[in-house]
Amino acid sequence: MGQNLIFTDDIMATIGQIEAQGGHRLTVWIADENTASLVPATHVITIPAGDDSKTLHTVTGIWDAMERLGVTRRSLVVNLGGGMVTDLGGFAAATFKRGVRFVNVPTTLLGAVDAAVGGKTGFNYNGLKNEIGAFAPASDVILSTRFFDSLPLTEMKSGFAEVLKHAMLSSREEFLRLLNHDFTAPIDHKDLMERLRRAVQVKVDIVARDPKEQGEREALNLGHTVGHALESLSMKRGKSVPHGYAVAWGLVAEAVLSHLKFRFPSEDVHRLGAFVRDNYPGFPFTCDDYDDLLELMRHDKKSRNGEITCTLLSEVGAYRIGQAVSSDDMTAALDILRDHLGL
Amino acid sequence: MGQNLIFTDDIMATIGQIEAQGGHRLTVWIADENTASLVPATHVITIPAGDDSKTLHTVTGIWDAMERLGVTRRSLVVNLGGGMVTDLGGFAAATFKRGVRFVNVPTTLLGAVDAAVGGKTGFNYNGLKNEIGAFAPASDVILSTRFFDSLPLTEMKSGFAEVLKHAMLSSREEFLRLLNHDFTAPIDHKDLMERLRRAVQVKVDIVARDPKEQGEREALNLGHTVGHALESLSMKRGKSVPHGYAVAWGLVAEAVLSHLKFRFPSEDVHRLGAFVRDNYPGFPFTCDDYDDLLELMRHDKKSRNGEITCTLLSEVGAYRIGQAVSSDDMTAALDILRDHLGL
Repeated sequence: MGQNLIFTDDIMATIGQIEAQGGHRLTVWIADENTASLVPATHVITIPAGDDSKTLHTVTGIWDAMERLGVTRRSLVVNLGGGMVTDLGGFAAATFKRGVRFVNVPTTLLGAVDAAVGGKTGFNYNGLKNEIGAFAPASDVILSTRFFDSLPLTEMKSGFAEVLKHAMLSSREEFLRLLNHDFTAPIDHKDLMERLRRAVQVKVDIVARDPKEQGEREALNLGHTVGHALESLSMKRGKSVPHGYAVAWGLVAEAVLSHLKFRFPSEDVHRLGAFVRDNYPGFPFTCDDYDDLLELMRHDKKSRNGEITCTLLSEVGAYRIGQAVSSDDMTAALDILRDHLGL
Repeated sequence: MGQNLIFTDDIMATIGQIEAQGGHRLTVWIADENTASLVPATHVITIPAGDDSKTLHTVTGIWDAMERLGVTRRSLVVNLGGGMVTDLGGFAAATFKRGVRFVNVPTTLLGAVDAAVGGKTGFNYNGLKNEIGAFAPASDVILSTRFFDSLPLTEMKSGFAEVLKHAMLSSREEFLRLLNHDFTAPIDHKDLMERLRRAVQVKVDIVARDPKEQGEREALNLGHTVGHALESLSMKRGKSVPHGYAVAWGLVAEAVLSHLKFRFPSEDVHRLGAFVRDNYPGFPFTCDDYDDLLELMRHDKKSRNGEITCTLLSEVGAYRIGQAVSSDDMTAALDILRDHLGL
């Protein structure tokens, strides 16, 4: 499951080195409608953008294009785009002729810190997110902040929530540094690259110990039991919120639960709550939604025997996976979350 | 890539142990129309038999059935059937929710010695054999000869050719023992289980050193450069031959090439030729077919830069992968093959 992480802004030179070292005669890029124009190469498979296109139909389109382009097991595939492109392109490459080497070049902060690294690939099926897929690591992940200048602020914030999550799993120093982040300032690329490097390393270390999510990898679910439920409900109601916003709210709720159950310091709950209140506005739920939210949490992929299950913290950096949470505790945490957000 | 090999006739007790040790609450069997009646369990996904059904359409049918049956990552899948069932069921299980544990129970000798072991899964796509797939090992392979009593003789011989191939890659003693095999005698289950055990171990040892076919695993291609070409041409002409028959003929041709290029003992070529002549009748080609056969060999998956490539032997047990073979040498070998077969 070893993945080579390369932090550089010189994408083409790096791809050139990979081609030369691997003796690849043919390189095919997979991009979506938004990122295809960034590809400085001839063989490009362009797929429709957006999670609605993360389907088997798009995968078969990629396989067909690979046939036409003459892709063999000795070819190289480069996925250039956000999480949808790296998830789907990774699956298509990993299954074509039982596996063509592929490299991920994430173009969003969320993709860089989450989807592009760690080997999860797949697509949505029968209305279920990432229902079909494979654990298949990109051989290399090229991480650059140069794409982020053109990201909408909402996208940057969405990715930043996952950066924050990784800090909460690993380092109070980093956690406090991130809480000082100012989204209104221009991007400091050097600093952002360093934050990215640290966040990605947290994921890599955890995945290395549990590549197929049989235990510890579940730590990366911090904030996501509540976050996924909020995201799903917002989608059902036709007023979807960005993934990272839901995660940010989920991090606050699960920090509250961590305080209730494992004495996670209230000081850190408050700092986190204030940062999320200031930067992730728009929480669209009331106490009338709790029943629906709890029901969604009971059906989460990570839930066991229909119980609500969370990753919780005893302090920043000290996580406890698979913690059962009662409906009463979850209801209390959602109330306190709303207080933190000033609702 | 570790696979647990279990040689036993008590399939259900073994599955019961696997369920108990793994804490699996739900076990779903995948079988084809021929093997479904052998399943002593309630949750069975039955797929159409035959290589024509080895398609993406059949895979999506399995995924849909898994959804309906409530399969989760903690469930167990058991593939019961020949190579088509273990290849296809293995792929469906390996990709459902990014991977459900699966066990293979091959019901044919060919499946037992070849497809069920070693982690190759997949399906045919756009008319290409096993074009889409994954390297995904069954956690356990349960090997029993009890299913073989009802196999047609042609099927037994077909599987036996792969057993013979594995002996040629590993042991002259075993090779000579196999050449004394009498297909007209009733099955000696104890002896057959021992032959199967040895043959499977050869594959397991090679696969362990090269799970993703980046080098040594190509040794398992012995007999298959010529064999695949004969099989493909017979299929195109609408008079298909069993896979193992084509492999048996291919083993003779490649033993001849091994003699020409690496002094593989002519004594062993003759012994092998006589056994194949006596037991694998029906070779349906003449020298008029050579051009077509050579063209097929140049387009074999294992060919490099359009050259014909074979695994050859300097003696039984000593293989050399990726040997380029000239058209003249191949033509000579096909002539000598026809001599051996008495044509």
